Amino acid sequence: MKISIIAFDDFTDIDVFFMWDLLNRVNHPDWKVQILGDQCCHTSSTGLRLHTHGRLEEANTSDAVLFASGKGTRRKINDEPFLSAFNLDSSRQLIGSMCSGALILAALGLLEGKRATTYPTSKRLLESMYVTVVEEPFVREGNVATAAGCLAAQYLVGWVIEELIGKTERDAALKSIQPVGEGLMFADLEASEVLPNAPFVRQQSTS
Amino acid sequence: MKISIIAFDDFTDIDVFFMWDLLNRVNHPDWKVQILGDQCCHTSSTGLRLHTHGRLEEANTSDAVLFASGKGTRRKINDEPFLSAFNLDSSRQLIGSMCSGALILAALGLLEGKRATTYPTSKRLLESMYVTVVEEPFVREGNVATAAGCLAAQYLVGWVIEELIGKTERDAALKSIQPVGEGLMFADLEASEVLPNAPFVRQQSTS
Repeated sequence: MKISIIAFDDFTDIDVFFMWDLLNRVNHPDWKVQILGDQCCHTSSTGLRLHTHGRLEEANTSDAVLFASGKGTRRKINDEPFLSAFNLDSSRQLIGSMCSGALILAALGLLEGKRATTYPTSKRLLESMYVTVVEEPFVREGNVATAAGCLAAQYLVGWVIEELIGKTERDAALKSIQPVGEGLMFADLEASEVLPNAPFVRQQSTS
Repeated sequence: MKISIIAFDDFTDIDVFFMWDLLNRVNHPDWKVQILGDQCCHTSSTGLRLHTHGRLEEANTSDAVLFASGKGTRRKINDEPFLSAFNLDSSRQLIGSMCSGALILAALGLLEGKRATTYPTSKRLLESMYVTVVEEPFVREGNVATAAGCLAAQYLVGWVIEELIGKTERDAALKSIQPVGEGLMFADLEASEVLPNAPFVRQQSTS
């Protein structure tokens, strides 16, 4: 199974990296996660440089395609070469977006007559694209889903993992990122601890 | 104010990028966030390449220093050149860690006789370093704090923002990443929407 995250310049850091990290927690021999873009590198809205793993066209043969968010989405919805690279098919692919990534789904015609969610700062723009925008963290319409508010990536990625592999793997991935004592307990993972050589402990200076 | 995130090879993606993203949501003229390392680039445990912004020694003049986590911490607690670069002082700096980053705090002598938390897979190792490990998401001992379970970054970063700037800025940063309808409402940020040129909406093919 191949899962593609779509990035572009001026992406919101957390919306790419949270999906990436969570998806990579799946332990399955047939599970490949990749970040695609129309350049070899994209720069986030805070200036971090991200090396992409492949071209946008690889999304068309992916089992799941997840669009990132950020200021850059406002340019991408008017970027015809970018939009033309996609030939997605919701009858055979899971397609989703984080926050303002919903604008790209709309520009690709994937939200026609559908309900969707987006970040508050792109609500009116998404409405102007003939989408019914609802104030919910995760909206699924068949194989097309939108999530909004960065931490809602848990719903979006959880959906992809459950649909492609199963609920057990979804639950394990989501549990592994919860705060200790609030969803993740020591006993859940302690047995998998690997101890290295004896660590060096420096005495703190008294100054 | 200068806030430094310490990275290294084999870091856990989300524990660097979540702190980075959250800290960058602070809108204050005197607020600089940087990622430091002992190389120009570090590679995460999933293979993402991260360009660092400066040398480890810059941590010593930072107002807050936050250690990332990941498999790489097991090497760093035995890496004397790495440890020697730090001359941190909890009387004038906020010092914190995510997950197994607590191992580095312990190796630096900053957790002597203190309570701390860490990721389940590094609990016994941290205990072997004479630290009282507790099953809590966030443990603060004066100006030294540990957080564990990736989403507990909210507690750690929230603490730093509140201590250095104030509660209003902390609350605003944390609210901005909550799921829509579950902590973040459209009305919270909608007014700041900027509309671009009219977007292009492609008709979906009927095939």
